[in-house]
Amino acid sequence: MDAKITLPESELPRSWYNVLADAPTPPQPPLHPGTGQPVGPDDLAPLFPMDLILQEVSTDSEIAIPEEVLDVLRLWRPTPLHRARRLEQAIGTRSRIYYKNESVSPAGSHKPNTAVAQAYYSARAGRTRLATETGAGQWGSALALASQVFGLECKVYMVRVSYDQKPYRRVMMETWGASVVPSPSPDTNAGRAVLEQDAESPGSLGIAISEAVEDAAGRDDTSYSLGSVLNHVLLHQTVIGQEARRQLELAGETGVDVVVGCVGGGSNFGGLALPFVRDKIAGAEIEIVACEPAACPTLTRGPYAYDFGDTGRLTPLVPMHTLGHDFVPPGIHAGGLRYHGAAPIVSQLVLDGLVRAEAFGQKDVFAAAIEFARSEAIIPAPETAHAIKGAIDAARCADEAGTEQVIVFNLSGHGHFDMGAYDAYLHGRLEDFELPEAEIERALKAIEDLPKPAGVSV
Amino acid sequence: MDAKITLPESELPRSWYNVLADAPTPPQPPLHPGTGQPVGPDDLAPLFPMDLILQEVSTDSEIAIPEEVLDVLRLWRPTPLHRARRLEQAIGTRSRIYYKNESVSPAGSHKPNTAVAQAYYSARAGRTRLATETGAGQWGSALALASQVFGLECKVYMVRVSYDQKPYRRVMMETWGASVVPSPSPDTNAGRAVLEQDAESPGSLGIAISEAVEDAAGRDDTSYSLGSVLNHVLLHQTVIGQEARRQLELAGETGVDVVVGCVGGGSNFGGLALPFVRDKIAGAEIEIVACEPAACPTLTRGPYAYDFGDTGRLTPLVPMHTLGHDFVPPGIHAGGLRYHGAAPIVSQLVLDGLVRAEAFGQKDVFAAAIEFARSEAIIPAPETAHAIKGAIDAARCADEAGTEQVIVFNLSGHGHFDMGAYDAYLHGRLEDFELPEAEIERALKAIEDLPKPAGVSV
Repeated sequence: MDAKITLPESELPRSWYNVLADAPTPPQPPLHPGTGQPVGPDDLAPLFPMDLILQEVSTDSEIAIPEEVLDVLRLWRPTPLHRARRLEQAIGTRSRIYYKNESVSPAGSHKPNTAVAQAYYSARAGRTRLATETGAGQWGSALALASQVFGLECKVYMVRVSYDQKPYRRVMMETWGASVVPSPSPDTNAGRAVLEQDAESPGSLGIAISEAVEDAAGRDDTSYSLGSVLNHVLLHQTVIGQEARRQLELAGETGVDVVVGCVGGGSNFGGLALPFVRDKIAGAEIEIVACEPAACPTLTRGPYAYDFGDTGRLTPLVPMHTLGHDFVPPGIHAGGLRYHGAAPIVSQLVLDGLVRAEAFGQKDVFAAAIEFARSEAIIPAPETAHAIKGAIDAARCADEAGTEQVIVFNLSGHGHFDMGAYDAYLHGRLEDFELPEAEIERALKAIEDLPKPAGVSV
Repeated sequence: MDAKITLPESELPRSWYNVLADAPTPPQPPLHPGTGQPVGPDDLAPLFPMDLILQEVSTDSEIAIPEEVLDVLRLWRPTPLHRARRLEQAIGTRSRIYYKNESVSPAGSHKPNTAVAQAYYSARAGRTRLATETGAGQWGSALALASQVFGLECKVYMVRVSYDQKPYRRVMMETWGASVVPSPSPDTNAGRAVLEQDAESPGSLGIAISEAVEDAAGRDDTSYSLGSVLNHVLLHQTVIGQEARRQLELAGETGVDVVVGCVGGGSNFGGLALPFVRDKIAGAEIEIVACEPAACPTLTRGPYAYDFGDTGRLTPLVPMHTLGHDFVPPGIHAGGLRYHGAAPIVSQLVLDGLVRAEAFGQKDVFAAAIEFARSEAIIPAPETAHAIKGAIDAARCADEAGTEQVIVFNLSGHGHFDMGAYDAYLHGRLEDFELPEAEIERALKAIEDLPKPAGVSV
């Protein structure tokens, strides 16, 4: 039997799947941070092109993917679905494990799936420039690539500590023509205010978001782009799960038992899981598992509440599982999972019992990454390794129960820019982080006075 | 039309193509460094398993690929052939450019194609350990991966300057379970001798080869593995060209006009080109272009002569284009092309006029790399960028001649571990190197007293 299932380009999905058409609980609206009233399209127009704003609130089941976007996605899509036969042998399971390989994109992750769409809609709206923030650089490099394709300028505010310590992602963005500055930068009021307090500030994602939002809001030619959390971002990622469903059929599977992804903001998880959530809502018995770091246990330990998306309290209030907007997770290597909140769509699905969340410690996650790299050969990103750990656990669990399951997980990215983390793990320098309950309680105080979602006891 | 042509696993080639069956001039034999007599199988037996020694001298046209090797290759093979439509648009050519994407292997290059075969044959011969050298780490990581798959230990002697400056390839090897030491090391006589002279020696590929050969020769359980140059290495790489030929047919091409690859030792070039050389010998009109750095112009400026494969004069004498075994090329970023010689097969084909060689300066090569990265999205390795430059030149040449050609090149690897070089280029810190005629004359003095190939005026 084949080691991987490829699809011809003719099977690239022609529409995105919108779970809001099927979800049992309609999402609660984001609120304006000043008025506490639901945010309307006009409030968002300075930041986003109208096409994306409409996608954000659409309840249509299918939204057509523009030809111009398909034309870029097919540079690397459809991505392969691999049968992890060697991993199965290594762990001695009777279950069948599959993984969707999003690491084959030029930027090395699933992120370009939405970056391409966002750049396209901004270009079509007549904007000539995009502004965004990036932490370790996965999202920034995806947007740099997409901007290059559509002839847009791209300004990336990169958290200073990453800018200094991880220069290669910065160079990748520059190779694709983006302009990258360390954040806090002297280019914005938000950045200057921080620099006045502390000229040596290492920066944070919260500060970088504030800078990018200010940049975009202040210029008619510029859109703001976000790489996760928002409904339209998860929408764009559903090509992943649609392809995977088709590939499992081609592999001869009549059903799937467990779907696994890692969750930071929620976009790669949603991308794989949402088409299977649709099946589950229609009656299929599927376990859908969201894996997060124990050091940033948003879904497993954060309440469902309204909270800001950034530490600077500039964004709308978003209904989500959150640890509080000033929560600062320990410095785990899975930088892309160090976010205090989670996508409203994913948060609601957890609340509705359609998705189950699990949290893993960093050492266990790296052990799973090494197990995978030594059997399936691909070196995964530390974020992705959370999904691998989840899939291995699911297989072991099935073995203990004496069942044989079909498990699929999202290999959201490769670890080529994370070898420093592997070095630390292999040479015994990697720590697990205890997260004291008191720290979570402290961080949650910051959201006590914010509006509460309807019908939810926080 | 599709952006890339994928093949199902059922179309993975089942045999390697051996050009020695068809080449117009039989290769001259390697000579024993001591006796000057042709090397026999027994001379090589301490280093290589007999299967590989027999492949080295075989004149069979097709050699079956073992099932166990196919089973590993299909983790990433067949690799896609891309139509570079966006690059064509960017440079405004009427020609059709295709590239074979070998960067999708887990190690990021074509190197695992032979590493897997070599590890398999060593394991089958009962050896439990492989020793090799690596410069920047591409070959070492491929062999680490292959060793892991077949349960072999792997010891890599890594040139110290790379070991210190480029730790991430070392970590990649360790992730796949290899043991990596900086060379010169205290583990061998060759290494200790160098360290006694200079405890701070930065090492060289020549020293590292000497260490790995000594290691393997001294232990019954160990084979030596080489990542290029040898006949059997090029043989294993011919899966590339066989797949590409089939994919061009599927793309509707009835012929190909230009085939391009970069040459260091010659393995990725040979892998793509040799199946097309067969067509050319059979009468097809195909231009086959070998691209090398102007800083190490082996094929364009080196004579065809017998020379050692290493600076330490330990290997057999090999008939090849060479700049002399103590030639030290300037420190260009395409480390994989900094070799004083070239594969005997490729050297003979150049001599026979079946392959044409071209040399490019480093800045022109990086300009081509950026052009490619900004149109086709993939960031190529600096080595690979030589082939891109060659392909773009061929297209421009066709445009000037008013013709429309089919051009295919080998995208031998990605540049994820070479971003420092891109940084230097993008920020104006990259140099071109002038190579004075006097330096070539000096280096060639070292081979004056060696035996000469028959019928060749050096």
